[in-house]
Amino acid sequence: MTRRPRRPTMVDVAREAGVALRTVSRVVNDDATVGAELAERVRAAIAALDYRPDERARHLRLGVTGTLGAAVRQLSHVNPVLRAVERAARAAGLMVLAASTEDDEVLERHVVESMCRRRFDGIILEPIGEDHGYLLPELAAGLSLVAVDRPVLGLDVDCVISDNVAGIRTAFAHLVAHGHDRVAYIGDDERIYTAHERATAFRACAAAHGGPVDAMVHTGRIEPGRITSAVRAALAGPAPATAIVTGNASISVEVLRRLGADSRKVAIVGFDDSELATLLRPDLTVVAQDDTAIGGTAIDLLRARIADPARPVSRVTVPVELVRRGSGELPPIS
Amino acid sequence: MTRRPRRPTMVDVAREAGVALRTVSRVVNDDATVGAELAERVRAAIAALDYRPDERARHLRLGVTGTLGAAVRQLSHVNPVLRAVERAARAAGLMVLAASTEDDEVLERHVVESMCRRRFDGIILEPIGEDHGYLLPELAAGLSLVAVDRPVLGLDVDCVISDNVAGIRTAFAHLVAHGHDRVAYIGDDERIYTAHERATAFRACAAAHGGPVDAMVHTGRIEPGRITSAVRAALAGPAPATAIVTGNASISVEVLRRLGADSRKVAIVGFDDSELATLLRPDLTVVAQDDTAIGGTAIDLLRARIADPARPVSRVTVPVELVRRGSGELPPIS
Repeated sequence: MTRRPRRPTMVDVAREAGVALRTVSRVVNDDATVGAELAERVRAAIAALDYRPDERARHLRLGVTGTLGAAVRQLSHVNPVLRAVERAARAAGLMVLAASTEDDEVLERHVVESMCRRRFDGIILEPIGEDHGYLLPELAAGLSLVAVDRPVLGLDVDCVISDNVAGIRTAFAHLVAHGHDRVAYIGDDERIYTAHERATAFRACAAAHGGPVDAMVHTGRIEPGRITSAVRAALAGPAPATAIVTGNASISVEVLRRLGADSRKVAIVGFDDSELATLLRPDLTVVAQDDTAIGGTAIDLLRARIADPARPVSRVTVPVELVRRGSGELPPIS
Repeated sequence: MTRRPRRPTMVDVAREAGVALRTVSRVVNDDATVGAELAERVRAAIAALDYRPDERARHLRLGVTGTLGAAVRQLSHVNPVLRAVERAARAAGLMVLAASTEDDEVLERHVVESMCRRRFDGIILEPIGEDHGYLLPELAAGLSLVAVDRPVLGLDVDCVISDNVAGIRTAFAHLVAHGHDRVAYIGDDERIYTAHERATAFRACAAAHGGPVDAMVHTGRIEPGRITSAVRAALAGPAPATAIVTGNASISVEVLRRLGADSRKVAIVGFDDSELATLLRPDLTVVAQDDTAIGGTAIDLLRARIADPARPVSRVTVPVELVRRGSGELPPIS
């Protein structure tokens, strides 16, 4: 409970003006049906009390806030999709209030439900986990939601995703074309849909290429210890990998940190571009996602959903692009 | 105006239960003064209508939300302070909803005023610009606000800042100790308090050292073209700089990108640490801010302010630390 001074309320204005609360409400909302004399008395009372309408109070009546919620993995990390979402929202006159889910299912639910209770116009969600049943009553109650990067499993919800399968296939084929037969994959926790989709696509590529599969795929939470052992495992043994595909930008960073000077001896294609990709020697070849298209499409879908809750659900897959910078063009070194 | 299905309101519950609106409100807020029989009727109506109290409506009465707003420069960039703020807030059972100000004074005001109208418990603000007069009525109305990284100029508001002057002095002295007489500074837009403070401290160091001052200091918005010309200017002419101090992590990235392979020939000390600092050859020597202390202190101050609006204002300066990694220990090359 805060001890902040109490702001004048609409009730105070009604008392001051000697009119019904609903009359004050009508005036505040520019309802023309209020007589000029009454409206004048209300405006005088508003001025006298320095009453400022509470946006939440107005939203209770109008049901709109001009605000979108974004529940993303981590606010404080580089997030080009969130950046694109913010830009597209701003261009549409909407403000984005974002919160981190830390890829924690409990925290995601807490964040999303809190945004729902605030009656945000809509929510952009980077979903984690399998069970999104908690969204059902909110969707039934009119929540407008668009999932980015990952779909909301089990629910029929608009979503925008990168073409993960094509991206992994492109990366794998690119390394094979540069003479690599033993390509390892180091990826994120497969509880995350995107991570699972990329790892699965990689296993399919490795199997089709006829090499070992399980020994070449290392996935799990992004923790220094785990990445270290994954890199060691990939480069150890009688038949070490001569190339590595990383599952996302954070993993690229961790892998490059582990490799140090050896990063010149192992070919690498990273999933996701990042600012540091062009600061390395050699620079990092990546499968770049079209962040601007993802963010812009997410806002387009969300606005369309808000405008027409009954419209058919869209699932948009955004193409990815291979960007050659050197690390992915290194020949195998045995 | 959205077409979303209408949620049952407290008015519907009152009608269903055949009681006064105020009675429903009392029951929803666990007011013990409501008779058992009445309360039971209300609860039955709530169940029958599947009525879920609107958090904003409750906040109109309770004035608390369990939510903090964070208005920061850019959500989608690495922001260790925001990360620390989120962690400290979560530990205190508070959720952080954040928005980007893009260091745009108009956008900052829009974001902060919107958070105020939502009656967030308090706001963490990375202020931009000189005129924060718009905050006066909000502060008078009981807004709890803590500024991070920069103070709110002209207003008596709690703030947490890094020791920028000591950081610049340390960086400059470190380079001089490694034999550098011509040290250049490439910094951010001096409209930003922190950028101005760091540039001013650098000018003082350069002047005290007896070298040229203006020719060595390059500040302005972080734009590729500007950084390119700043780097060129610093390393050109008859007496080129042999060392560079950068004003923040983003500028370090841009400068290193411009230098390319030459980054091995120019000593560099960057202000702000970052993940890529340890991915370079040589790794980047930095003046590291204590982000955890800044974020944690900001939340402590905000909670103290919320608990006691009348408490004296605190301005906390957090020490910085020089982290030697190689780039700042390179000798001068003429």
